[in-house]
Amino acid sequence: MSYSKILLVVIDGISDRPVNGKTPLSSAKTPVLDSFAEEGVCGIMDPISPGVRAGSDTGHFALLGYPPEKYYPGRGPIEAAGVGIDLKPGDIAFRANFATVEDREGSFFDKVVVDRRAGRFSNTDELADSINEGIDLDVEFIFKRGSGHRGALVLRNNLSDRISGTDPKVEGKPPSRSHPLSDNPSSEDVRTAEIVNTFSEKAHQILKNHPLNLERAMSGELPANAILLRGPGKMPHVEDFKSKFGLSLSIISGTALIKGVGRILGGDVLQVEGATGGKDTDLEAKVKRAMESVKSHDFILLHIKAPDEYGHDGDFDGKKKFIEKVDRALKPLSDLDDCYIAITADHSTPVTVKDHSGDPVPVVIRGEGVRRDDVKAFGEFTCYRGGLCRIRGLDLVPILLDLAGVAKKYGA
Amino acid sequence: MSYSKILLVVIDGISDRPVNGKTPLSSAKTPVLDSFAEEGVCGIMDPISPGVRAGSDTGHFALLGYPPEKYYPGRGPIEAAGVGIDLKPGDIAFRANFATVEDREGSFFDKVVVDRRAGRFSNTDELADSINEGIDLDVEFIFKRGSGHRGALVLRNNLSDRISGTDPKVEGKPPSRSHPLSDNPSSEDVRTAEIVNTFSEKAHQILKNHPLNLERAMSGELPANAILLRGPGKMPHVEDFKSKFGLSLSIISGTALIKGVGRILGGDVLQVEGATGGKDTDLEAKVKRAMESVKSHDFILLHIKAPDEYGHDGDFDGKKKFIEKVDRALKPLSDLDDCYIAITADHSTPVTVKDHSGDPVPVVIRGEGVRRDDVKAFGEFTCYRGGLCRIRGLDLVPILLDLAGVAKKYGA
Repeated sequence: MSYSKILLVVIDGISDRPVNGKTPLSSAKTPVLDSFAEEGVCGIMDPISPGVRAGSDTGHFALLGYPPEKYYPGRGPIEAAGVGIDLKPGDIAFRANFATVEDREGSFFDKVVVDRRAGRFSNTDELADSINEGIDLDVEFIFKRGSGHRGALVLRNNLSDRISGTDPKVEGKPPSRSHPLSDNPSSEDVRTAEIVNTFSEKAHQILKNHPLNLERAMSGELPANAILLRGPGKMPHVEDFKSKFGLSLSIISGTALIKGVGRILGGDVLQVEGATGGKDTDLEAKVKRAMESVKSHDFILLHIKAPDEYGHDGDFDGKKKFIEKVDRALKPLSDLDDCYIAITADHSTPVTVKDHSGDPVPVVIRGEGVRRDDVKAFGEFTCYRGGLCRIRGLDLVPILLDLAGVAKKYGA
Repeated sequence: MSYSKILLVVIDGISDRPVNGKTPLSSAKTPVLDSFAEEGVCGIMDPISPGVRAGSDTGHFALLGYPPEKYYPGRGPIEAAGVGIDLKPGDIAFRANFATVEDREGSFFDKVVVDRRAGRFSNTDELADSINEGIDLDVEFIFKRGSGHRGALVLRNNLSDRISGTDPKVEGKPPSRSHPLSDNPSSEDVRTAEIVNTFSEKAHQILKNHPLNLERAMSGELPANAILLRGPGKMPHVEDFKSKFGLSLSIISGTALIKGVGRILGGDVLQVEGATGGKDTDLEAKVKRAMESVKSHDFILLHIKAPDEYGHDGDFDGKKKFIEKVDRALKPLSDLDDCYIAITADHSTPVTVKDHSGDPVPVVIRGEGVRRDDVKAFGEFTCYRGGLCRIRGLDLVPILLDLAGVAKKYGA
């Protein structure tokens, strides 16, 4: 009768505010999403709470049952987890960029940043190795490259996240010296800022003399001779998904940020060839992988990023067409009948706002025993009439666990 | 496209429980309110939470984004702010009445209260001056008259609000001595009660010999020879609306209580000639002032009191007719199209209950980008079908800030 598998499909930023009464979702042809709405129970959902503009990171924490105000560690730790660093509670993590500063003698902090992304140089494996091998700090550290010019730095051993980064955020200025954020800094704050500055100086000295950069300079390319750090955060203690909810978690996403959230929660981040996290992603491959994962995992998160990007671009037609593409790609899920399927978003990204908004997102849950309602289409102007009424992101996992028969009774 | 002005119209106690299936609101002709419902997104709202009977004060705290359980200081401080006293955190404030006690020798606390309102004597300016000039206490105090026989007392310098007032609440008994409420009173509790009793005794000695009162006694009128204190509360630290939400706040209300709430939140309380806070108020003047205020302020609260009074009176037809009057007065808002407009109530005041009830109130939000729904009438039996579903009072400001594009993103 019942079954304990759950597939959560998060279509990033799918919902909008209307333009002349229509949205990309409401005007798209979405027979598959609509059939889910017809067969399931619908509602609207505030990822955090009404009016609050969720990030994709805080939104996913909430949708996966983790109150972000308790667990959200900031961007640094999520990015670090996203590139595959195994974080421990108390670790301080930064987002990092390979960048280009002026090529002359002197201290790193006196040189103007020429390009914050080192000409988007991406072949940074050797450079990352040279940093890990060549730098000696008073504390343990891990540097890891990410995609493109990106990377992450983790500092271990009881340091502080109440310090600034070194990224000046604009070009034409020298890097910022890390400093404590508090007017009354603790000794850990002061020590951490010093370590960050030492790391940055040493990284520059190693990178500017690295053969790869000398070569790039010779051929007129921007050398990746600096590391800029931003978004420091401290990794909290996070009970993993399996311990917290009793279900094994897998994540299918092309987006480093969501992979990072998944790793922080102890999930298995599955690799899918062609999953880019962009408009060119291989949706069919991701859906196929998600369906396979139902055999090996209990709770599967399938994250589809691009509708959010079209929202940020303000591209109504592009978003509408991509939603139709998503709809076609989800077709195989129609026959997946031994699994609860929830389809929703982590936040709205209206093309009129070109950023995340606090508008609620539509949500549908299909599976054995749900109380079907009269809603027959998935969208902003239909789901609110459904049987779920208006729920919050944090409600979703408990509702799914209960349907799947794996929730504990509270009381007798 | 978007705009950042917000007008919140609170029609005090507008909603009801049905009598033979009808309410004053549902049976009133309200073409203007209905056009807002048609053009906007509707819902029902629990000012505090479901079933909780909000006061107008706690309801307004919530509707303005301040959790009352954290910020509500009790009636004393609100009344004191309402009469124009500039409260500091830690101040202890009381509501005060000019009253009449027996005219004979002896202690204030031995004399029977003849009239708790001193025959509703209202020309109390000189009496208040004599209290402020004639009384010397160990602590700083401010006494200020309000409208009619009312006033407020504020005690400064680290005192306690865990003490009783002096108002016996009935006539024919002597005033109550202030005493600590705790079984294990602190030294501040004891000291505060003593100061309150000393103030009351000294005020009586000054007032009973005041020329104005001797004159009144001569002509057979009740002398205002006593001050009765009730509703003590301590002023908490309250971040002002502008600091908290980034928007300047104005308040248009004829009601001292709502003016007090507005002042406590750091809003500009605008004077409107003819705004009485009663059934005879000049609604057109208030609406005009609100529309002017959209030019000078970011967030405008327009409060209309009388429907609540008809509710307390149990007057179905009077309430219905006044709601129709409000509807006509709101007509000019129809053309105010560069401003988000929310229309709701701070609580229900059913004519069948003759007091506030915990029933939800209808709410509509109109403005660029709201997700219009199918609701075409503003009322108890229509709005619950709308796109907002059921929200809480504390959700309202975040939703409006998000629509107006002034909400911060939480996460990335």
